[in-house]
This record gives sequence, structure tokens and C-alpha cells, in this order.
Amino acid sequence: MLRTHTCGELRLTDHNTTATLCGWVQTIRDKGGVLWIDLRDRYGITQLLLEDGQTAPELFTMARSLGREFVMKATGTVIERKSKNPNIPTGEVELKVTALEILNPAKLPPFLIEDETDGGDDLRMKYRYLDLRRNPVRRSLELRHRMAQQTRVYMDGQDFIEVETPVLIKSTPEGARDFVVPSRMNPGEFYALPQSPQTFKQLLMVSGFDRYYQIVKCFRDEDLRADRQPEFTQIDCEMSFVEQEDILNMFEGLIRHLFKAVKGIDMAEVPRMTYAEAMKRYGSDKPDTRFGMEFVELKGTFDTVDMTSGKGFGVFDSAEMVVGINVPGCAHYTRKQLDELTDWIKRPQIGAKGLIYVRYNEDRDGEPGTLKSSVDKFYSEADLKAWAAHFGAKPGDLMLILSGDCAKARKQLNELRLEMGSRLGLRDPNVFSTLWVLDFPLLEYGEEENRWFAMHHPFTSPKPEDIPLLDTDLGAVRANAYDLVINGTEVGGGSIRIFNRDLQARMFSILGFSDEEAKAQFGFLMDAFEFGAPPHGGLAFGFDRLCSLFGGVDSIRDFIAFPKNNSGRDVMIDSPSPISQAQLNELKIATIAK
Amino acid sequence: MLRTHTCGELRLTDHNTTATLCGWVQTIRDKGGVLWIDLRDRYGITQLLLEDGQTAPELFTMARSLGREFVMKATGTVIERKSKNPNIPTGEVELKVTALEILNPAKLPPFLIEDETDGGDDLRMKYRYLDLRRNPVRRSLELRHRMAQQTRVYMDGQDFIEVETPVLIKSTPEGARDFVVPSRMNPGEFYALPQSPQTFKQLLMVSGFDRYYQIVKCFRDEDLRADRQPEFTQIDCEMSFVEQEDILNMFEGLIRHLFKAVKGIDMAEVPRMTYAEAMKRYGSDKPDTRFGMEFVELKGTFDTVDMTSGKGFGVFDSAEMVVGINVPGCAHYTRKQLDELTDWIKRPQIGAKGLIYVRYNEDRDGEPGTLKSSVDKFYSEADLKAWAAHFGAKPGDLMLILSGDCAKARKQLNELRLEMGSRLGLRDPNVFSTLWVLDFPLLEYGEEENRWFAMHHPFTSPKPEDIPLLDTDLGAVRANAYDLVINGTEVGGGSIRIFNRDLQARMFSILGFSDEEAKAQFGFLMDAFEFGAPPHGGLAFGFDRLCSLFGGVDSIRDFIAFPKNNSGRDVMIDSPSPISQAQLNELKIATIAK
Repeated sequence: MLRTHTCGELRLTDHNTTATLCGWVQTIRDKGGVLWIDLRDRYGITQLLLEDGQTAPELFTMARSLGREFVMKATGTVIERKSKNPNIPTGEVELKVTALEILNPAKLPPFLIEDETDGGDDLRMKYRYLDLRRNPVRRSLELRHRMAQQTRVYMDGQDFIEVETPVLIKSTPEGARDFVVPSRMNPGEFYALPQSPQTFKQLLMVSGFDRYYQIVKCFRDEDLRADRQPEFTQIDCEMSFVEQEDILNMFEGLIRHLFKAVKGIDMAEVPRMTYAEAMKRYGSDKPDTRFGMEFVELKGTFDTVDMTSGKGFGVFDSAEMVVGINVPGCAHYTRKQLDELTDWIKRPQIGAKGLIYVRYNEDRDGEPGTLKSSVDKFYSEADLKAWAAHFGAKPGDLMLILSGDCAKARKQLNELRLEMGSRLGLRDPNVFSTLWVLDFPLLEYGEEENRWFAMHHPFTSPKPEDIPLLDTDLGAVRANAYDLVINGTEVGGGSIRIFNRDLQARMFSILGFSDEEAKAQFGFLMDAFEFGAPPHGGLAFGFDRLCSLFGGVDSIRDFIAFPKNNSGRDVMIDSPSPISQAQLNELKIATIAK
Repeated sequence: MLRTHTCGELRLTDHNTTATLCGWVQTIRDKGGVLWIDLRDRYGITQLLLEDGQTAPELFTMARSLGREFVMKATGTVIERKSKNPNIPTGEVELKVTALEILNPAKLPPFLIEDETDGGDDLRMKYRYLDLRRNPVRRSLELRHRMAQQTRVYMDGQDFIEVETPVLIKSTPEGARDFVVPSRMNPGEFYALPQSPQTFKQLLMVSGFDRYYQIVKCFRDEDLRADRQPEFTQIDCEMSFVEQEDILNMFEGLIRHLFKAVKGIDMAEVPRMTYAEAMKRYGSDKPDTRFGMEFVELKGTFDTVDMTSGKGFGVFDSAEMVVGINVPGCAHYTRKQLDELTDWIKRPQIGAKGLIYVRYNEDRDGEPGTLKSSVDKFYSEADLKAWAAHFGAKPGDLMLILSGDCAKARKQLNELRLEMGSRLGLRDPNVFSTLWVLDFPLLEYGEEENRWFAMHHPFTSPKPEDIPLLDTDLGAVRANAYDLVINGTEVGGGSIRIFNRDLQARMFSILGFSDEEAKAQFGFLMDAFEFGAPPHGGLAFGFDRLCSLFGGVDSIRDFIAFPKNNSGRDVMIDSPSPISQAQLNELKIATIAK
């Protein structure tokens, strides 16, 4: 090794010993006849000391010529620092330099290599290898490493076998768009990159592997919204001879193990909620349960008493649903603030038609708080009082109410609830709230395509008691499917699978596959079900997202070493890029002018 | 869980308890009024017992109807077996069945699910999910899992960070053929799948990650020779601030750890040999050192005394090299056997012109053994005696000698040596012999292409003392490159890297890149070298091969869950396959008729 110690290693107990360090110049301070260099590596920072009259003059001269990020090798004696730095583990010592060597000089970096950098996103992506030197980014990847390690500790301990499934597989029409790979040996044919190892893990169950997992790259050629990557990583798992309850327990165990091992947090049991309940209480199948502000219906689904109709307010009268949230302590919102909020929710991204508010004013001068709403014309104070009681509102609170079509009103109110939660500081990234959402619908109807789609995927099993509904009411069939939600983010999901050929064939038929198509695409799986397939189920976690969540960071980008930008480009290596005509010829493909 | 225990779990200590097992019917024996079912899962086999008069008649009837590979759930009482089976851990007990349920019936499998199967390769590939049920295949994948686990134990213990590098990267002209992926978002442009994460791991060193590893899929679109796969797995590693010696020690440590942890073998220190020495002694840069039979030169490189010329044998006189091996105890080889051996070595795959033999006959009736050769016409017994002494041959041995061009003769004799080693049973797959091969040439000349190629890759550093030879004798420049060889198989290789922009640019120029090409392909790496790149080096192990070697099996196929055949096809899922015109249109590519 070129060094005897790392830059994070020396302590007072090393006093008077000789050490050699290697690293990067973080800073140089030159004060009178004394020169300090902070030398940095992955493990820490150690201060180097050069003193006029004590250090050889040529070293002193060389040291003065160094720039930030030069790669150095320094040998010296470990001594006690006069002014200690309690913020770093090496802060009690410094290295009095006796030899100094430039291993590699460095041009001035295009942005500051510090926790707070002056580099913009584009520049940092282009010089990603420099951005990776910054502590927050490096720490994010170290966290990811620990997450992977601890995932393996848990899974190995539960007798799961890690099996690598292929990356060059077969393109299938269901789900998102595949990336494809032309085959040179089989001209005119293509491999696809897996969106998930779904069929392979099910085949491993048919093979009797019993418990499988893999931390595995998956691929989706989708238009990239912010913070989506064309390649992403899953913790992919499958188990045999289990029911839903077993899977929930097993992977609740994994998440609790990760919280304990990586964050030191004793996570309570994960609460459970059906999809229907989540939609009713939060308007979302991935509710952020760090805070309340649950939905209150003034008019709506069958078990709700209509508290709004017949008072002359046509908007509510004609609405399928009137639903709101009570925002604690926000009665002081000014008309201007409420107008802004109304504009915010009317933006095309959310698309509400309007926003009704009811201020429950604070008690004043011994008088109980009055109620003031934007619909005072239609509703008496007694009506509003009844609403307030229904909302559980207290003086000082603000009720925000939306109306319209049930699905849309819920979706819009979900956005509003999250926004108000953020404004009130109720969404602390270092507070964690977990939730299992259960009993998802098996199918959802695509209005545009005019057909049914699998809500999870075509291999998900309907609840046995709902199988008769496959003949009568497809939308009412519930699946043995479950999602794990943390802080309003779906971090994992899975299902108990179909393991019977006939039911699987029926599922494909419901999804609009002809018998021939089903056979061509998934014949191998349906065949496998005839040779002794065990009951099985599983789940996959989005590993990038899970890591960013544990890191308390919204963006997954810094939890991926070399991410792509929103156009799917790696701007550092400049990829994708044209390939040669010779390569195209070999592959027997041509590119078509745009 | 549908079961209380696995099929490998019950013991005499569970006597009289109730247990529920799930698994596959391995065999059914029906003898008089007693019926035994061997129920199998990943963990073992447990015997189920049904007795006429004791077991409910309907269960008995159902059990009689079962076929092999039916998936069953059985509940019963654990009892002591009358005739114990000492070969399996559950062999002292059986489960006296009180409830029996068919979880899934099974069609008759197309081949026997047993250690020795009657299924041919093609059938087993098509029904890979059934082949994976067989013990030897399952055990191979379990071994792979343990190898990966123990690799991580070692690497984590040495402060390496596992970092995932991208799968969608950039096509580069050097090395093997890339698989490419058309980009829909960037029409006319392609990603490539990585042949290795080489540049990314070097960038991680520039980023200061210091110690990186990854167990990672890599891809090569090459014509598949037997036992090559288009996708394969590497243990990929890189370290900063190291010299060759540090890397050899670190990864010798890994290999010894794996032998100990996975095989229970205390592996001795790994011997070292230069490339030049390996070529001279074994004619190969990956010698099988499980046995001797080292090369003996009768005429050859400059330090060899010519023991053959001037005796009128034109073949040897005109040869650049005369080189042989001494095969112990094979003087009894008949003329017919020797002719066969000659034919074998003259096959086009090996291409020798002929084979000279010298039999050193056993001593007989007190007379010392005579020497008999195929070149007696030219060489006296005294000559042959001198050769024998030079070979270290003893009575009973057989010397086999080839001649010709140095490189060819060595290559051919290497094949012959391996063949004789196999014939003599000296290549036991459960004996392990390791070797570091060092000081590889930096470059090799491609006669066909009429240019120099990097022997390892373009990022490999020349030995500092050989850098002047870059001006004068490219073929003589040695690299700081090393291979780890086990039993004649290269299981890993690596190098100290170039970390200086100018030297890297020079290397590209030697390899025939124009400045523009080098910049377009690897500009990002050369730029990175200017921003403070540390000295670094690394290594990659072929994980599939390493696993098969540890498994004592020649083929890597059973150490890959879902391998492809020699045409790059997955015959189980029938991939690659045509994709739809709509997909092609979206990707803006067309296939071209063959």
C-alpha cells in the first residue's frame, strides 16, 4: 500500500509514530510561516502541518504550489494539535510532514467539492465523478451499500437463496414498454431487458427453490418523469407454500430489520388498511400517514349522510361527492392565501373546479368562535356548525372542501392534504410511518383502450371468495395483492400468484389476450403450472426509492452512482450514441430517419 | 404457512408430535396394505406412511391415485421408522398421515427428476424449471449462493463498498462485440450493455471510493463456443493507492477465504510465475499445475543447448524449437496407441505436423532399460540417453516431442500435456492448484488486422521500467497485469491502471485510435484523470466459472439458473423473438431481410 493509514484513522494514541497518508487536498491554509493542508479520503480528513524552519524548504515551496484536489502522499510524525477540532475524529492530531509527493496534480474542479456546492445539476451530472467526491453523495451510496448488506443478512437468515435471473429475456406486450436488444445470431429477433424477473421467480418456485430473492436491475423504457430512471433496482422475493399473512409478516420483518440495523430505529408493527379504506380516508392507495387530516365526507359513498344537498348550492347538489379535510390552526388564512390555494388546486396538474373553505374562527373575548365560509349564501351557521362537528374541527381550524366526481374529488383532495401537510411541517423526512395497503382491486378499466388491465400484473391471484365475481363484476374482484407504503411512498408491492393453468388462462383472456397470444408469450409459464406448481407469492421493493427514503432525501438520483437525466442520457459518458454502420449491418437492422 | 416443518426437518426428537409438510411426491411404494410416499422439498425428503385399516380409507384411495411430482400437503404424527434410512437426516422418522391434500396435480414430467436423469440436454433446457428440481442442479445454485455470500463477507470485511454501475452504457469499438439497445427517446442512438464496468470502476476510484466491488452481470455478443454465455457474472473489484503486490495479496485472501468457507480447504499460499516462465514451462498462460510433465526444450529459446541439430533429421534441424514432455509410466504405449495420439494431435484443432516419441523401456532381467524412438534413424542410443537425462526420464517413461515454430509448438504441446494429464487421472476436479501469472505483455500484434491490440485492455499500465520500450519495441513491453489460474482455468485477471492522461492518450494512439476517436469514446475518462486521479488497480473474477470450479464440474451451465444455448437462445421462454412493427416504429429502426 502507498499509505500506512487512511485519513480517518490517526488518533492521539498514535502520537509520535510515523505515518504515511494518501488523499486529496481539501484546503490549504497559509498563515505566516505555517502551512496546513487538509488531506481527504473516503475515511476522513487529517491535517498536515508544514512549518517554516522545521519542514525542508523544498517541501514548503512545493506545498505552496498545490491546488485543491491534488492527489498527495504525505509522510510525517503524528503530533498533538495545538487547536483541536472536536468535529472530526482525527481532530486531536496533525501530521508533521517530513516527505510530500504529488501523486497526480489536478485541474481546478468546475465546482466546489464541498457539502454545499456551487455546481448546478447539469455540471454535476457531466462531472459525476467529481460530484461523487462530495460527502452527501458519497454517504448516500454508503447508505445504499449498508441497506443491501442488511437486506442480505435478513434474507439469508430466513433461508432465502439469491438466484440470478437472466437480463436478456423476451419482450412481452403487457405492462410498460420494454428495452429491446437485437440478436446478431438470430437476425430479425430481439431480446428484451426485464421489467422485473416476475416469470423467472415464479418458475423458481415451480422448481422447488422455496424461498428466492435477488437484488436486481430492472428496466422500463418509459418517458421519464422527474426522478424516474430507465434502469432501477429491486429487492425481488418469492416464497412457496405461503398465504398473504406469511408474506406480510416476512417482509414487515425485513423492513423493521432495516430500520433497526441501518437507522437504529425500533419500528412498531406495520398497521394495515384495505385499499377501499385508504381511498376513503386519504383518497390515495399510498397515504402519507405521518399526519392526520383524514378525509371527511359531507356527501358521498353509501354510508355517508348527505349534509349538503337541498340548500340551493347547485355545485354540491349535483356532485357525486363532497369531501374535505380539517386543517388544524389555519383559520387565520387570509382571503389572499385562500385564493392562492384555490388557484393552486385549479392548476391543470390537479384540475379541481374550485375550493370551498369554512373558517372556524378562534373564540374571542369570551365569545365562541364564529364560522365563516365561502358558501355562507347557501348554508346557515347551524349547517356549518354541524359540518364542523362532523369534521371534528375546533376553533382556529380551517376546513377545506372539494366536490365532484368521487374518484377525481379524492385525487384532488389527496394533493391538497399533502400540500397542507407540507405547509404545516408535518412531513418530516426523518419521521417514518409505515402502512400495509391490502385487498387491491384485481383489475382496472382502461377507458381509452376500452379494456381491462391488471392492476398489479396478470399473475396476481384473485381472492378465492371473489372468483365468482369474475363472471359478473370484474371491477369488484379483489386481489390477494398488497403494497408497503412508507411516508406516502409505495416502496414495495406484491401478491399471491395464480398457480393454476386454467385460472391463468382465464386471466389472460380477461386481459384481452387471444389463446394464441397467451400461449406464445406465456405458454412456458402455463405449461409449468401443469407440472406441479406450489402455491406461492412474493413481493418486490423499489431499492433506489427505499434507500432515498432511509436517507431522508426526496430524489433517488444521489442513491444511484451514475444516474441518467430526464431524457435517458448519461451526459458524463455521452450515451446513448450512434453506432457504426458495420455494427448495424451485423445486427441486420437499420435506423429510420426521424 | 401451509406447513409446520420442511421436509428436511423432522427428527426422532419430534416423536409423537403433529406436523404438516408440503412438497412434491418423489416416489410412492405400495406394499400390501402399506403405502409409503417420499415427499420432497428443497430441504430434504420425509417419508409419509399410510396403513390400511389405520389411515382413513378415502385418504388411502387418494394416495393410490397420486403421481410423481404432485404437490401435496400432509398432516400426521411423527413416529419412529421400523426400517431406518441412515442416508438421509430424516431417516429415523416417518409421518403417519391423518390428513392429505393435493395442492396441485402434475402431469408426468418429460424426464426423471432424479440425480441421474434420462433427459437429454435439449429437453432439460426446454423444461429448465423441472431440471432445476434435480439435486445436482439445485446444489450447484446453492453453492453459487454461498460463494456470493462469502465473497461479500470477505469484501465487506476489507472495507470495500459495493456500488451498482449502469447496465445501459456506451458502445465502444475495443474488445468483443457489444450488445446494443436502441433508444426510443434518442432515435438513431443506442446504448450498449457493458462487457465489464471497467471505466465506471476507474471513475469510482477518481471519486475517492477507495475500495469498490460488485457482483455484476456483463455481456458479450460473441459466437458462443461450448460453455460460453452471452451474459455472465463477474466479481469486479478496484482499489486505490495500491501496487500490484497489494492487489495480489488482497485477492489471494479472497480465494483462500472462499476455499476455507465454502469447501473447508486450507489453501496454501498461491505460487507466482511470470508469463514468460509459464509459456516456457507449460506453453500456456494458464497452466494446469495439478501435475508436472513440464516442458523440456531440446532446442529452443536462447538459454537452451541445442541437443538435436546436425544429426541429419531435417524436421528438427529446420525447427525453431524442439520441445517435449516426459509422461511417467507410459513406455508401454503400443505403436497403435502412439499412432492414435499422433492422429489426435494432427487434427486441425491442434494442427501439429507430427509427433516424435522416445520410449524408455523398463529394466528387464537385470538389464537397464533400452531407449526406442521414432527417430532412431537419426539419433543414437547415447543421444537418446542424453535426452532422457535432460527430461529427467526414468525407465518406464515415455517422452513425447514436438517441433516447429516456437509459439505453435508450445501451444500444441500444451494440448498434449493436458491430454496426457487427463489420461493419467492427474486432473482430479476435487484437487485444487492455484497460480498467479504475472508480467503479461502489454500488447500483442494482430497479424490479420495488422495492428497492436491490448492484451488485457487499453487501461492497463505498462511496467514503469518498460515505458521507454514503447518507443522502440512494443512487443517487449510488459504490463502490470496478472491472472489468477486455478487448475488450468483463468478465473480472474486484472491490472494496475494508467492514471495519467498523456500515457492513456499514448496508449490509445498505439492501439490505432485517432485523437478524435479516443476523445469521442473515452474523453470522459481522460478528462477525469486531470482532476486528481489516484494510482489504482483492480481485478475481476469470472464468477460462473469460479463456481463451477468449486463445484468440481467442467460446465458452467448448471451454475446458471436459466442459461442460453449455443445459439444464444433461451429455449424455455423461446427468446430472442420477433417484436411487433409498432415497437420497431417507436424505436425508429427496421429489420433487414437476411
